[in-house]
Amino acid sequence: MRDTGTRHKVVILGAGFSGLWAARTLAGGPCDVLVADRNNYHTFLPLLYQVAAAELESEQIGYPVRGIFRRAENVSFAMGEATALDPAARTLIVDGREIAYDTLIVALGSVTNFFGVPGADTHAFRLKSLEQAIYLRNHIMGCFEKAVSSKDPAEQRRLLTFTVVGGGPTGVEYAGALAELIRGPLAKDFPALIAGQARVVLFEAMDGVLYGFPDPLRKEALLALRRKGVQVFLGAQVEEVTQQYVRLKDGSNFLTETVAWTAGVKAHPLPARLGLTCAPNGRVLTDETLRVKGMPDIMAVGDICQIDGRPPLPMVAPAAIQLGRHAGQNVLRALKGKKQKAFTYRDKGSMATIGRGAAVVRFAGRSFTGFTAWALWLFVHLMYLVGFRNRLLVMVNWAWDYFLFERAVRLILPREGLWNKSSLDPEALNGQAAPKTPPQAP
Amino acid sequence: MRDTGTRHKVVILGAGFSGLWAARTLAGGPCDVLVADRNNYHTFLPLLYQVAAAELESEQIGYPVRGIFRRAENVSFAMGEATALDPAARTLIVDGREIAYDTLIVALGSVTNFFGVPGADTHAFRLKSLEQAIYLRNHIMGCFEKAVSSKDPAEQRRLLTFTVVGGGPTGVEYAGALAELIRGPLAKDFPALIAGQARVVLFEAMDGVLYGFPDPLRKEALLALRRKGVQVFLGAQVEEVTQQYVRLKDGSNFLTETVAWTAGVKAHPLPARLGLTCAPNGRVLTDETLRVKGMPDIMAVGDICQIDGRPPLPMVAPAAIQLGRHAGQNVLRALKGKKQKAFTYRDKGSMATIGRGAAVVRFAGRSFTGFTAWALWLFVHLMYLVGFRNRLLVMVNWAWDYFLFERAVRLILPREGLWNKSSLDPEALNGQAAPKTPPQAP
Repeated sequence: MRDTGTRHKVVILGAGFSGLWAARTLAGGPCDVLVADRNNYHTFLPLLYQVAAAELESEQIGYPVRGIFRRAENVSFAMGEATALDPAARTLIVDGREIAYDTLIVALGSVTNFFGVPGADTHAFRLKSLEQAIYLRNHIMGCFEKAVSSKDPAEQRRLLTFTVVGGGPTGVEYAGALAELIRGPLAKDFPALIAGQARVVLFEAMDGVLYGFPDPLRKEALLALRRKGVQVFLGAQVEEVTQQYVRLKDGSNFLTETVAWTAGVKAHPLPARLGLTCAPNGRVLTDETLRVKGMPDIMAVGDICQIDGRPPLPMVAPAAIQLGRHAGQNVLRALKGKKQKAFTYRDKGSMATIGRGAAVVRFAGRSFTGFTAWALWLFVHLMYLVGFRNRLLVMVNWAWDYFLFERAVRLILPREGLWNKSSLDPEALNGQAAPKTPPQAP
Repeated sequence: MRDTGTRHKVVILGAGFSGLWAARTLAGGPCDVLVADRNNYHTFLPLLYQVAAAELESEQIGYPVRGIFRRAENVSFAMGEATALDPAARTLIVDGREIAYDTLIVALGSVTNFFGVPGADTHAFRLKSLEQAIYLRNHIMGCFEKAVSSKDPAEQRRLLTFTVVGGGPTGVEYAGALAELIRGPLAKDFPALIAGQARVVLFEAMDGVLYGFPDPLRKEALLALRRKGVQVFLGAQVEEVTQQYVRLKDGSNFLTETVAWTAGVKAHPLPARLGLTCAPNGRVLTDETLRVKGMPDIMAVGDICQIDGRPPLPMVAPAAIQLGRHAGQNVLRALKGKKQKAFTYRDKGSMATIGRGAAVVRFAGRSFTGFTAWALWLFVHLMYLVGFRNRLLVMVNWAWDYFLFERAVRLILPREGLWNKSSLDPEALNGQAAPKTPPQAP
């Protein structure tokens, strides 16, 4: 189709921030670009927790990759997962099809890191994909429905205890959003005896939330969470997760039906399986120009990238975008016969929001809190959202939520039993255990 | 909670149009009302096909039942399915819990009728629930993605042949919407060689579409479908559906990956299993006041209702609404010691839309076509949509679609493999084969 066979062919694995920005940089360039992803859409991960808190609809933070590159003649898309790589032949197998490349950009991102905590892998909810967010949202709504029909107070309390593990930005934002969901719309929907029992508990192993933020912001975030009604447990190291409870290192048990795990991420396991050179932290080892060590035709960007001899980059959207853009630029430089440039990370600051009207922002060496921070947060996220239409709908939803304190998305859809929870594990889908054929009747 | 134990207790099974309108009629009345449904939301079924055509988001036609009755003090909700009924004791088992009633209103609606066509049950897609619509939408997008990566022209043609069985309103509307999806947004997203091969085929066993509409409207609908590019086969009786093809009575085979079955509906099988008196057509047999024959404490409304000695009512939303409202009114009459009234059906007309700007409407003895009909269709559907917010978002989406000819929802979400297709069969979930526990890891 678009592949003329003679132009330099760039294959990009992954349509997250880094893959997308690499492709955007190459759009219109003197090469053919193929973006491959297991999903046909890009997920705006910074707002994923709002889907899991029934605040946004899934379609509002997902955007079809083909739509993004509709006007880029040299960019095409293939839906599928890479299963094998032959660096010598410069070919890749994607869902059984052989794809040739001249340059391969690996942008596979990260997966949830359970740090080996027993039971977490099996019983905790992940927050790294739209499907996982929808699953978690459905589960929470289901807990409320079950609590209504239960006559056992202890069972009700367990069903209505929602725990979040990890006090980083995602954990803080999710706990805040959940607390607002429970105190707002669900309090209106459910009998007072039920809604009044619901609580959000946040476990953080360190002595404060938002590690890495300036101290005043960390304190402000903690206060804001507590004002929202979140029970924050500091120095609370989770040692075990079961179907029934979370057990801390101090021996205490929290009976809960819901454990949302936001305590950490690690490199996607696929690059290691494909045989790429990896650092001890599991990320792909590259030189300063983002070329994989010993494999000059392959580049690694985003969460997956570990530049040799440098400290690991933060696994956040701005870093991924910068890495993706830089890789694209280096490809263009190579095509023009120019020298490859070393990557330099520019720290754009960081931010976290705690429900309506509250946020903490570190930006340009300054700290912001409260409504100003929240407005900044809102502005940045809206500007980054891919595609105007999405932006408009997100704004309508937010405005609605903000003024009427109403949530839209409380549908339990699909129902329990229609999902296969274990297949929501991205690692399982990438490995040998992956269901290669859809569950069709014979 | 709200059940005082002394007031008359009405239990309504099903939150479709008839169940919802029965509950609305009883809201604020001198009784306690419990609405039970397997889903926690009401589905606006007349627009379901637009979800399956990637035109509307699922949340725009689903509305949480608790939200609808938030201000009705005497109406509560239970999520679950009835599994047993004891008419003598006036109790019902819903998901293992015993629920007592004084009056039971059965409003379980209808399921797809495959008329015993071999393979249809297994291989055809249903269009009776949000989950089924999402599944079908994902499947269609997946067919396009597979066609792009296939190198076999015959396989591509099969993947890009979308068949609709049944030329009633749903089949006509869905075929029209699919044709527009393919010729509009997908033609922009996919290479011309792919999009140009895609076709929509509609099979209708009779000599025209929209049986029951006035002849000029039937002709106009047929012309409109053909103008949109739908290949309409009249007198085409489907005899077999397989994974690979549809076979007609005349012996011809159509190779296709997608068969959307809209050829008919039949009464939900649950009432018969619960032991309710049923007519030969499977519907619950009632007297003129909608009381089930021989079971005066039980009423049946909506698609499930067959009034003894009368022709079957059309299985459409206006009839369901009238039946539900009438049952509610008869309950109120009984509580006031007044005489039960016989139900009278008022035919409000009928309508079907064929994509953008085209529709056929039969209303108040008159026929409308073209843009006037489409504007009428739009107005009626928007007015009926439950909840202002939904209405607003649907309008935003439609306006967008209409002016820019863009579709929003092209996400393949959840991915194939995460769904259990067989469990999307409502009958399977209601019978012994139902997965009673969620797929939790041990």
